[in-house]
Amino acid sequence: MWENFTFPNMKQLSYNLLQKGTHGADINKYFDYGIMSLIFINIGALILESIPEFQQQYSLLFQAIEYFSIIIFTLEYVMRIYIADMTHPASNNWKSAFLFIFSFYGMVDLLSILPFYLPLIIPIDLRFLRILRLFRFLRVLKLNRYTHSVDLIFQVISEKKNELYMTCFLTIMILVIASFLMFYAEGHHQPEAFPNILAAFWWAVATLTTVGYGDVYPITGLGKFISGMIAIIGIGLVALPTGLISAGFMEKIHKEKKQNKTGSKHTCPHCGKDFHEHS
Amino acid sequence: MWENFTFPNMKQLSYNLLQKGTHGADINKYFDYGIMSLIFINIGALILESIPEFQQQYSLLFQAIEYFSIIIFTLEYVMRIYIADMTHPASNNWKSAFLFIFSFYGMVDLLSILPFYLPLIIPIDLRFLRILRLFRFLRVLKLNRYTHSVDLIFQVISEKKNELYMTCFLTIMILVIASFLMFYAEGHHQPEAFPNILAAFWWAVATLTTVGYGDVYPITGLGKFISGMIAIIGIGLVALPTGLISAGFMEKIHKEKKQNKTGSKHTCPHCGKDFHEHS
Amino acid sequence: MWENFTFPNMKQLSYNLLQKGTHGADINKYFDYGIMSLIFINIGALILESIPEFQQQYSLLFQAIEYFSIIIFTLEYVMRIYIADMTHPASNNWKSAFLFIFSFYGMVDLLSILPFYLPLIIPIDLRFLRILRLFRFLRVLKLNRYTHSVDLIFQVISEKKNELYMTCFLTIMILVIASFLMFYAEGHHQPEAFPNILAAFWWAVATLTTVGYGDVYPITGLGKFISGMIAIIGIGLVALPTGLISAGFMEKIHKEKKQNKTGSKHTCPHCGKDFHEHS
Amino acid sequence: MWENFTFPNMKQLSYNLLQKGTHGADINKYFDYGIMSLIFINIGALILESIPEFQQQYSLLFQAIEYFSIIIFTLEYVMRIYIADMTHPASNNWKSAFLFIFSFYGMVDLLSILPFYLPLIIPIDLRFLRILRLFRFLRVLKLNRYTHSVDLIFQVISEKKNELYMTCFLTIMILVIASFLMFYAEGHHQPEAFPNILAAFWWAVATLTTVGYGDVYPITGLGKFISGMIAIIGIGLVALPTGLISAGFMEKIHKEKKQNKTGSKHTCPHCGKDFHEHS
Repeated sequence: MWENFTFPNMKQLSYNLLQKGTHGADINKYFDYGIMSLIFINIGALILESIPEFQQQYSLLFQAIEYFSIIIFTLEYVMRIYIADMTHPASNNWKSAFLFIFSFYGMVDLLSILPFYLPLIIPIDLRFLRILRLFRFLRVLKLNRYTHSVDLIFQVISEKKNELYMTCFLTIMILVIASFLMFYAEGHHQPEAFPNILAAFWWAVATLTTVGYGDVYPITGLGKFISGMIAIIGIGLVALPTGLISAGFMEKIHKEKKQNKTGSKHTCPHCGKDFHEHS
Repeated sequence: MWENFTFPNMKQLSYNLLQKGTHGADINKYFDYGIMSLIFINIGALILESIPEFQQQYSLLFQAIEYFSIIIFTLEYVMRIYIADMTHPASNNWKSAFLFIFSFYGMVDLLSILPFYLPLIIPIDLRFLRILRLFRFLRVLKLNRYTHSVDLIFQVISEKKNELYMTCFLTIMILVIASFLMFYAEGHHQPEAFPNILAAFWWAVATLTTVGYGDVYPITGLGKFISGMIAIIGIGLVALPTGLISAGFMEKIHKEKKQNKTGSKHTCPHCGKDFHEHS
Repeated sequence: MWENFTFPNMKQLSYNLLQKGTHGADINKYFDYGIMSLIFINIGALILESIPEFQQQYSLLFQAIEYFSIIIFTLEYVMRIYIADMTHPASNNWKSAFLFIFSFYGMVDLLSILPFYLPLIIPIDLRFLRILRLFRFLRVLKLNRYTHSVDLIFQVISEKKNELYMTCFLTIMILVIASFLMFYAEGHHQPEAFPNILAAFWWAVATLTTVGYGDVYPITGLGKFISGMIAIIGIGLVALPTGLISAGFMEKIHKEKKQNKTGSKHTCPHCGKDFHEHS
Repeated sequence: MWENFTFPNMKQLSYNLLQKGTHGADINKYFDYGIMSLIFINIGALILESIPEFQQQYSLLFQAIEYFSIIIFTLEYVMRIYIADMTHPASNNWKSAFLFIFSFYGMVDLLSILPFYLPLIIPIDLRFLRILRLFRFLRVLKLNRYTHSVDLIFQVISEKKNELYMTCFLTIMILVIASFLMFYAEGHHQPEAFPNILAAFWWAVATLTTVGYGDVYPITGLGKFISGMIAIIGIGLVALPTGLISAGFMEKIHKEKKQNKTGSKHTCPHCGKDFHEHS
């Protein structure tokens, strides 16, 4: 009887903690903030670890952060499997757990803890593993507060996918043409800066994206003319994806609004007459 | 009797000067221009004071500007407390004054004069205070001419808050991943430019934002490839916040328009009944 | 009788040439292309004249271009005064001419020829005059083909004026704050690069606008952090005016569409009932 | 009888392969991916060929790629002429073939194979031909998957043509004015960096587009002020085309939606009559 009474409660508590529950949403909010802080501490640690002085002086702190994070993330992962029957309803608990583990966000969770457990099973080079810990970043995408935003951004990008591919392709086309022109214009005057078209390609990318490091730049009149044209085209090229994505966001917002007020837009709720459908 | 007669007039005059009154809006316009000029003179003085030659030669002028500004801003602050019962109606004048002082714009006003009066009460280092005078900047936000624009901009940004956070997070994620890749690609070839991942992070920021100072740049083929990818991704990353904010402004403008023509949109043109509110 | 017959014809012909007439629109199109070519040749000449070798070798050509341009522009100006009664109808021809001369586009025309005639009246330094010839640029704004576009762009900018001012102000605020922070962070480490806040301001502008010449850049950790923050804020700052102008263009296009179909949107052209106004 | 039976089938098969047929759309998808891969391999080969070491070591591979590509593209071209009666219906097959060959996409196809066959007919310098192979790029525009996106992007750009021309013109105007100002401000202080206005123009382009290579930059106070102004104006200038193109995409999407639901928007819901067309 004790078990019958407590277990549903614990499951509910876990659910409220991990998902945006009906009541007790606050607990989930603080949990989200906690996870987010942990992720940013992890990233900071990853970066600082690469500085030898830090690594030597604070190696214990770095290890503490690593162990603490892995405990939290593992606990969370286990809890999510435990409440899988609530988040991924299926005919039985095993199927629910299976559904969760192989869901996109389930894989994200797994990838963020796997790099720690992997060397316990099979021996791998540790340096390679350090990069894998970057997967922990993906956990931010799962934060309840941001799932709507993440979905919106990815939906807009995926809807405009083909147009964005075309923009990418146009960019590559312009880069290649610019590289060819530049190579023939400057190749003889600056053989060390533009020894081949691949080198000119590096200049073209730096110019079109307006980065302009200043390690390679044209010195002849023709080269400067090509460079100026490419830089100005670069401005136009920024306009294309920006315009596409602006339009995409507008579309999405419009659609959401229309879905929210279906009915009120097509029929009068009082006389019941259809406004638009009839015709 | 003299007091009874004059005081309301003076209050009305103060109100017309400080707020966009019903009549005498012109007086407020000139007051606004005056305050704006004063702010820009203050900023100019703050910058020029940091040049030793200027500081020595014109120290008297800088002090005159400072004293004049503080008198004007203090007078304004006192007047705003005086007319608080008109701008922040409450059960009594003390409550109104209190409401004004602790309102957002009341705090802005206080912060722009406090750095002058603070050392008279408690001794603080003067250099630190000079920076605090930058708070005077915030007074521009209060100019009647621009309150609508300020509100619009901040509303749009705050509505798209979550999406902008996500964009920031994506930016950080790309920066960190790029730093890791760059460190492993160039770290051995340019140990002085990329001694650790933090140094690579500095390169990543300069590249993704297309600043490209030219103090660090890749020299290996792989490094140049990563750099080019990051620069191109940078263009896409500019598109995200721009698209979000464009859509936000469009939404706000649409909403304002709809609010202006309520009625025509909220009632059935045939049975005349309101339908939006009830459905 | 000969005069009675020819003169109206010549006026009509002039009108068709200079304005987009009802018939003979083609003649105006070619005239527009001619004027545009002339303007671009003038600009090219202005730039090339500054190169001593060119100036010496082709001085005759430059003079020919100048005289030819001035003849064309003067002829056009006289013709526009001549047809002023058709473009600027008034009670008499003198008033029409007066209206044209003091109209915005009339002043543009005058400014583009005045620098040539001015030294004939009062002696002025010639170098200063060369710059004044840049006013000829403004003639492009008058080309019939582009007046709609010019109006659209300037209307959108002027409608979003206050918001754009606020963006400018925010930009200046960020620049000033960044300059202060940078001066205190790097001033002691690079006294030659950041001797005062004005010098730091130069760095701030180059960073926020992502130009990044590379003549000044931070070397300390704190300085690099501030620099990175400013560069990322710079991306967000680009988003504000872009979003505003996008929304402005959308609004303008919507309005134009609505004006084109007034009536059809508010009343049914067959049963005559008002759709929206009634309620 | 054998011919009667097989030929229509082969034509249908070719059609399904090259165009998005009614059934068998999958075959066309894989064909599209194949062509795209081939184009990118071609571009890669073109770039790598310019590096002497690669050219010597892998000349056989480069030649193999070239011959393979030319066979595929020629075969495709022949097949497209063969099925021209289905894609370009005309009174007879010759006319269809003629229509296809002189259509825009027909010319694209021809240009991508011509550089190979040309030297067999008339002897031309081979280096020049290598650039002509870049025409093969244009084949991407023909991929069925992307024709809609390509059309959308080009339609939006062509609809906003005049406004974009004006933006270009404004850009040139600002560049020229900035060059003049900069030349007079810095010409005497840095005669080697700003020897004439054309050199100042190069600086202006690098600054306005925010490329900022760092080969020329102002050193005087006035020069830095002008430079800062131009860089900030550059940000505004990016906003114009971006805003225009955003609005253009929005318009296009709106139009497409309206076309999809014609009827519901063009008839009065009460009397049922069409009202848009007649009014």
